[in-house]
Amino acid sequence: MRLPEGFTAGATASGIKPSGRPDLALVRIEPEAAWAYVATTNRAAAPCVGRGRRLYADGAPVAGLIVNAGNANCATGERGVLDDRRLAELAAERLGVEPRTVLTASTGVIGVPLPVAKVEAHIGAIELTHDLDAFAEAILTTDTRVKLSERSLPGGARVVGVAKGSGMIHPNMATMLAYLFTDAAVDPDALRRRWPQVVGATFNQVTVDGDTSTNDMAVLFASGRAGPVADGAFWEAVFAVARDLARQIARDGEGAEKLITVRVRGAASEAEARTAARAVAASALWKAAVHGNDPNWGRILVALGYSGARFEPERLEIRLQETVIYDGGAVPYSGIALSQAMQAEEVVVDVDFREGEGAAEAWGCDLTEGYVKINAEYTT
Amino acid sequence: MRLPEGFTAGATASGIKPSGRPDLALVRIEPEAAWAYVATTNRAAAPCVGRGRRLYADGAPVAGLIVNAGNANCATGERGVLDDRRLAELAAERLGVEPRTVLTASTGVIGVPLPVAKVEAHIGAIELTHDLDAFAEAILTTDTRVKLSERSLPGGARVVGVAKGSGMIHPNMATMLAYLFTDAAVDPDALRRRWPQVVGATFNQVTVDGDTSTNDMAVLFASGRAGPVADGAFWEAVFAVARDLARQIARDGEGAEKLITVRVRGAASEAEARTAARAVAASALWKAAVHGNDPNWGRILVALGYSGARFEPERLEIRLQETVIYDGGAVPYSGIALSQAMQAEEVVVDVDFREGEGAAEAWGCDLTEGYVKINAEYTT
Repeated sequence: MRLPEGFTAGATASGIKPSGRPDLALVRIEPEAAWAYVATTNRAAAPCVGRGRRLYADGAPVAGLIVNAGNANCATGERGVLDDRRLAELAAERLGVEPRTVLTASTGVIGVPLPVAKVEAHIGAIELTHDLDAFAEAILTTDTRVKLSERSLPGGARVVGVAKGSGMIHPNMATMLAYLFTDAAVDPDALRRRWPQVVGATFNQVTVDGDTSTNDMAVLFASGRAGPVADGAFWEAVFAVARDLARQIARDGEGAEKLITVRVRGAASEAEARTAARAVAASALWKAAVHGNDPNWGRILVALGYSGARFEPERLEIRLQETVIYDGGAVPYSGIALSQAMQAEEVVVDVDFREGEGAAEAWGCDLTEGYVKINAEYTT
Repeated sequence: MRLPEGFTAGATASGIKPSGRPDLALVRIEPEAAWAYVATTNRAAAPCVGRGRRLYADGAPVAGLIVNAGNANCATGERGVLDDRRLAELAAERLGVEPRTVLTASTGVIGVPLPVAKVEAHIGAIELTHDLDAFAEAILTTDTRVKLSERSLPGGARVVGVAKGSGMIHPNMATMLAYLFTDAAVDPDALRRRWPQVVGATFNQVTVDGDTSTNDMAVLFASGRAGPVADGAFWEAVFAVARDLARQIARDGEGAEKLITVRVRGAASEAEARTAARAVAASALWKAAVHGNDPNWGRILVALGYSGARFEPERLEIRLQETVIYDGGAVPYSGIALSQAMQAEEVVVDVDFREGEGAAEAWGCDLTEGYVKINAEYTT
């Protein structure tokens, strides 16, 4: 997928991943870009997150991004902080920019020192081009496929996004790296203000296993090279790309065979709609039922019930694959037909609380024997 | 297990469980007992919970308890409320007491009307004896074993407990029914005040799959027949029985092969210690790692990090099976030896935040292919 104007990217295999697959990725931005940053809320956040937060607080533009996969450089103590700084220095040297304009990111195993010498030895081999595909491949960990998305704006500006993440995925950032690049010229303050709202409705509504990771971030870069664009169209495109990537992440959840989409409307507030949608998407019992094509709506009701959202069971409506299965109480339906309808790549739950105007979506995946296998055998 | 003085119990098979196993259970209390009640916080709570709450608010003593397994009588609308009342009437008739002194409980499938005619046809067959075993067997659903525990007090009074629950188990009551019976004479107000504290530190610290059920309750009955006892010894015994049952529930989690115990100390508060302990016990990634005997402490750190408990990663200590694996940072250890040590029935994680005096325990179980199998195939 071609990057918007102002961005070039590339990747190489540095040997951090034992598999020998590509694991070191770079982006260069010319001129320096405005950016907006949301990162994990985990208290054990990695040095790259601490560093990114400080740069973001300073408000300076960015000229580069370096990502390594295979090692999270987390829980690595003072050495981890120095290694993270060294990562930025190596990238800055390769890109011919200042280290304080380079963002770092690490993803992978926790608690093992980052082999910075490998980065030093291989960073020179990275070729920067207008294509994002090598970058998209190199940032993966247990993902089974690359995650890319794009939208074009009237006038020629574009929004292009890339993400990784398939386990340790839960609201408030997960083992999730997401980068959106645009050549639209956007007011930097608006960028900072609106981006967390987009992340709240997209990446933070993805849940694979309830585990929120230590390293994750979602970043929007705007090079400005394509000039100003209409505000509405721009944020619509950003939202569409972020939502598309969020769905790709959920669909590629560890061991997942299906995407679960939960749409809630009629909630007392948007916050309650989000919470309720996430609770259903995250319910281990519902995830297992989806895996077994079992239209066990009792498990949806249970998850809504403990989500904290206010509702009356006597007023609630639940639809599964467009079939009403609960409307203030059980509704007769064909279990066989519904089970067949669940044998799809995407299982959609629609909930209407009939309480207010709050609406939200959330995405998850089915719980399979494969998830257990992957995570019982993934070694430190 | 023999009940304390003042209690008799029994059970029969009424045909509610398709398997034909015992599913209808009764307890009689003579004279009427003081009691303390904690029930699910789920908004879609079943009629039995609503009824129990009302009786408890009235403050009247209880003379009987009826439990059916195989059908939760939840999300069954107005009919469910009437069926629940009928359950109380049938039990009251059988026991020769007033319906308003009988507590009801239903557990099993959600959304299917309770076949009260079966209860009516078979309740007469229940024989009441001083033995709790038939009752313990009849209240089970997906449990693989009965859960009983007892402690004796100086002077002869006893505390005897019984519980069920193996799936849909999470803090704030789960598909969990727990009943403790004592013949000690205890001040009714103290009973009501202290019981929620015991439940908070025991049953609410059990997590199997993060799903909090609609029907669950923990009840403590005191017949008074053995006379007054020392306060300290009494609550110690109640706590020990509740804790023992909580551990039995976690150990019998759906598909579980191991008990996970998480002990947190040095937290800023007891509430934070509880939250942190539960987060680790509930982490799908850590549960899968325990299943695979993988000492992947990064997953413990991640769970602590998103639990909300305040701590500094640089000050924290983590022990796994008594071996220090993290002490302000990674500590060298033998992965092979530790993996071998994890091949035990119980895997114990000790966390010391070194922040304050807060301490708590939580219990869970490993995540296995068996959990997925059970819950993908359990039919509505």
